[in-house]
Amino acid sequence: MKIAVVGLGKMGMQIARKLSEEGHEVIGLNRSPEPLAESATYGIKPSTGIEETLQLFGDEQVIVWLMIPSEIVESQIEAWLAVLPQGSILIDGGNSDYRNTQKLGQKVADAGCNLIDCGTSGGVWGYQNGFSMMIGGDENSFLAIEPIFQTLSMPEGAYRHFGPSGAGHFVKMTHNAIEYGMMQSLAEGYRLLKEGPYQNLDLAAAGNVWQHHSVVTSWLNELAQSALTENPELTGIDGYVAESGEARWALETAKELGLATPAIQASFDVRLASQQGEVNFTTKLLAAMRNKFGGHDINNGKS
Amino acid sequence: MKIAVVGLGKMGMQIARKLSEEGHEVIGLNRSPEPLAESATYGIKPSTGIEETLQLFGDEQVIVWLMIPSEIVESQIEAWLAVLPQGSILIDGGNSDYRNTQKLGQKVADAGCNLIDCGTSGGVWGYQNGFSMMIGGDENSFLAIEPIFQTLSMPEGAYRHFGPSGAGHFVKMTHNAIEYGMMQSLAEGYRLLKEGPYQNLDLAAAGNVWQHHSVVTSWLNELAQSALTENPELTGIDGYVAESGEARWALETAKELGLATPAIQASFDVRLASQQGEVNFTTKLLAAMRNKFGGHDINNGKS
Repeated sequence: MKIAVVGLGKMGMQIARKLSEEGHEVIGLNRSPEPLAESATYGIKPSTGIEETLQLFGDEQVIVWLMIPSEIVESQIEAWLAVLPQGSILIDGGNSDYRNTQKLGQKVADAGCNLIDCGTSGGVWGYQNGFSMMIGGDENSFLAIEPIFQTLSMPEGAYRHFGPSGAGHFVKMTHNAIEYGMMQSLAEGYRLLKEGPYQNLDLAAAGNVWQHHSVVTSWLNELAQSALTENPELTGIDGYVAESGEARWALETAKELGLATPAIQASFDVRLASQQGEVNFTTKLLAAMRNKFGGHDINNGKS
Repeated sequence: MKIAVVGLGKMGMQIARKLSEEGHEVIGLNRSPEPLAESATYGIKPSTGIEETLQLFGDEQVIVWLMIPSEIVESQIEAWLAVLPQGSILIDGGNSDYRNTQKLGQKVADAGCNLIDCGTSGGVWGYQNGFSMMIGGDENSFLAIEPIFQTLSMPEGAYRHFGPSGAGHFVKMTHNAIEYGMMQSLAEGYRLLKEGPYQNLDLAAAGNVWQHHSVVTSWLNELAQSALTENPELTGIDGYVAESGEARWALETAKELGLATPAIQASFDVRLASQQGEVNFTTKLLAAMRNKFGGHDINNGKS
């Protein structure tokens, strides 16, 4: 298929590259020029803006994958809607609040186009391992662009259409809230190993044993183990843990519905406290894990 | 090696069977006769008691793997110590409190024998997948029986000696406390999916997408997904969630050391509340996961 990818950042670049290398015709857009130059080496056609992109589509259906921070999704969608032909499909592949997605989905539909939401997990490893994709929005539009998801899925089954507008972001939000709780649990445990009664206990070795068919075997534990192998004391990590909204939205939604989510709440609170200076081995390991799966800056919550 | 396995329950039987089938000379002890009959079909020699077992060892070093509930470990060890020759090695492979293990280790050492503690994970899948083993106690005794751990490890690296007496149970206790938090996080998320704003959202499908290189990819999520595939409404599960002590000990230890463990604490509290009748989809899924990995009764906390 022909598709434009807007935002060639950590994840957008990998998605665009994979699609291009697997035979799709990919147009890349990015504010800064360096990623555009890199993308050209993967066969991606760089575009300087919306108008040029539309010309490149010619008479074909316009499909645009937005891989941009949630804060600018609405303004970007409005910019595209001003010029998009009817029947175009926009994909919001980022971590947007599903409640905003519902509103934007209606706005896009009112303009005669369709907004597909796709919560995308897999971090910076997606190009290598494949992406996990949680999709919502008009089902026919989803079916029309399904080859895109098939290409990004390794092996089969890594994507699913979960329901109307926002359903994909809702499932991804929930995934990320679970992620907070799982990471926090691991980081609490590793701190207990480190500061517990056995001196010089080998944390990385524990993580390695746990990756051998124990009940906590998980990708997050693998990343913790890897971080602790490289840097057993987590030296140079300040312990500030950023959060990007998904757990906050999940907690808001759970409260509205009257659902108890105490482990996720506790995990979220630890991050907020870390931002006020309550840092320790737990929060350092959380930052190290975020760095491992998402390429996020390890200090000062810069991403 | 020649080894006696005491307690041919859900995990003891698998350990004894694996050791026997891989060429070790295994003697089995069990209170009830049925498991002894089953074990004989795996080449395990049934024994009716301690005296008979000692005769079967003859002049060889006596090695006894106890795979019994933590409540009866001390009385069992005392019964063995009364008759064991000096230099014998006892292994406590269950989930004992590491503080008790330290005391018992001293008692066993005073009698001229050695107690090795081995926290054993892998649930009822260990025979098939291999066991994850966290070991503490006298290092020379560990080295003497290392072939046992090598046999139970699939692939290599699934066991580790972490330090003096109790270190293995300490690491296993911490593992289980992490397990509580990870399970709770998953179960909170799945309840949010189920009772959230999207009707009829396919929880098992979400679990399946999450197993494809998402950040929460884990064995526990695989088990949750499997439970939700078989029984999407978790019908017939009362939501009582048992606990067997490890998280409680971990929380006690963390409090003594002044370490914050809010996610693990929250997870533990949810189990206690479930036992007082606060049951919901989260606690039903916790019970279903416990059943999946440990073969624990799904209702009324029977195991």
